[in-house]
Amino acid sequence: MRILLIGAGGTLGTAVRTALTARGHQVVTVGRTSGDLRHDLTEPEQIAAMYAAAGELDAVVGAAGDTPFKPLPELTGPEWTAAFRGKVLSQLELVRQGTGRISPRGSFTLISGVLARSPIPTGAAASMANGAVEAFVRAAAIEIAPQRINAVSPTVFTESLGDYGDYFPGFRPVPPAEVAQAYIRSVEGGQTGQVYTLD
Amino acid sequence: MRILLIGAGGTLGTAVRTALTARGHQVVTVGRTSGDLRHDLTEPEQIAAMYAAAGELDAVVGAAGDTPFKPLPELTGPEWTAAFRGKVLSQLELVRQGTGRISPRGSFTLISGVLARSPIPTGAAASMANGAVEAFVRAAAIEIAPQRINAVSPTVFTESLGDYGDYFPGFRPVPPAEVAQAYIRSVEGGQTGQVYTLD
Repeated sequence: MRILLIGAGGTLGTAVRTALTARGHQVVTVGRTSGDLRHDLTEPEQIAAMYAAAGELDAVVGAAGDTPFKPLPELTGPEWTAAFRGKVLSQLELVRQGTGRISPRGSFTLISGVLARSPIPTGAAASMANGAVEAFVRAAAIEIAPQRINAVSPTVFTESLGDYGDYFPGFRPVPPAEVAQAYIRSVEGGQTGQVYTLD
Repeated sequence: MRILLIGAGGTLGTAVRTALTARGHQVVTVGRTSGDLRHDLTEPEQIAAMYAAAGELDAVVGAAGDTPFKPLPELTGPEWTAAFRGKVLSQLELVRQGTGRISPRGSFTLISGVLARSPIPTGAAASMANGAVEAFVRAAAIEIAPQRINAVSPTVFTESLGDYGDYFPGFRPVPPAEVAQAYIRSVEGGQTGQVYTLD
């Protein structure tokens, strides 16, 4: 398949690219500052430009989405909105604009995360964003069929323990290569409206 | 207790007001166009003004939150954002700004809805918003303790079947008075981080 990969330059995106390529797929990478296509997907107009430049696609997979981490009392209105734009709106629009762009039985795979179900202090904006993405995936699935949509919702990565491990005490980390297999399952499988959790 | 009730003029808000009053609580009502206090809570500055005017509070309960309903392909960027501002951001800020305003062991009860778990066509924005609220509640609970926070997540109301019943085929409706009891459970009980579902 010809697959658009958002966030190919990150820890997870690199692993997803490797897994997709190993399965024989052709990967078109998108990133803010690296990749075959350079776009900031927090701007809906840039998503349109990206699809126009991407050509024919069978699947779209997202492996990027930023949210601020701060104690709840310090999260300001603009920061809540930044979390919404960075991880929710960008992915909603990726799907909404993409349904007319990808093949009739193509698929979308979005990125969520463990904080949707297991919160940590300073993670309220990320939890909010992940919960939004997962509920959206269930809703979009019934409207876009026979196209499909799923989310991958991983815990902290083994590679990230050095940087973020203190925020996830006792969480069992997961290797990005294992998370990448959930993307394979979403892209090549037949399920829709699923949240593939890894924790 | 002295309890601030958002959306007291609506179908649910009326039932919640009746239930709280029957339990002996003093209810301060807030609405856009009716109530003891008149504020549009989609504007974070108005939330600050509302709290300044409300005086001492033991609990805050939300029974209002608007989202657009449209087929997924027709939902525009501004409409996704309206759903976020109308049902998510308004309630996030109600909590964030409220932690310093309500009593040390006070509580927040937010409104979510069945579409977080059981989607319907045209409901993708509502599903997204409800998923965001429910994940936020789990996250905020661990940061605001010993203050508490829960969500009430009802299915379609019996009173709304005439207007919306066709969108909820086979859903078993719930009387608003029964939903109001979930608010009583949240306000007077000891639990936090819970989503009380009614469907």
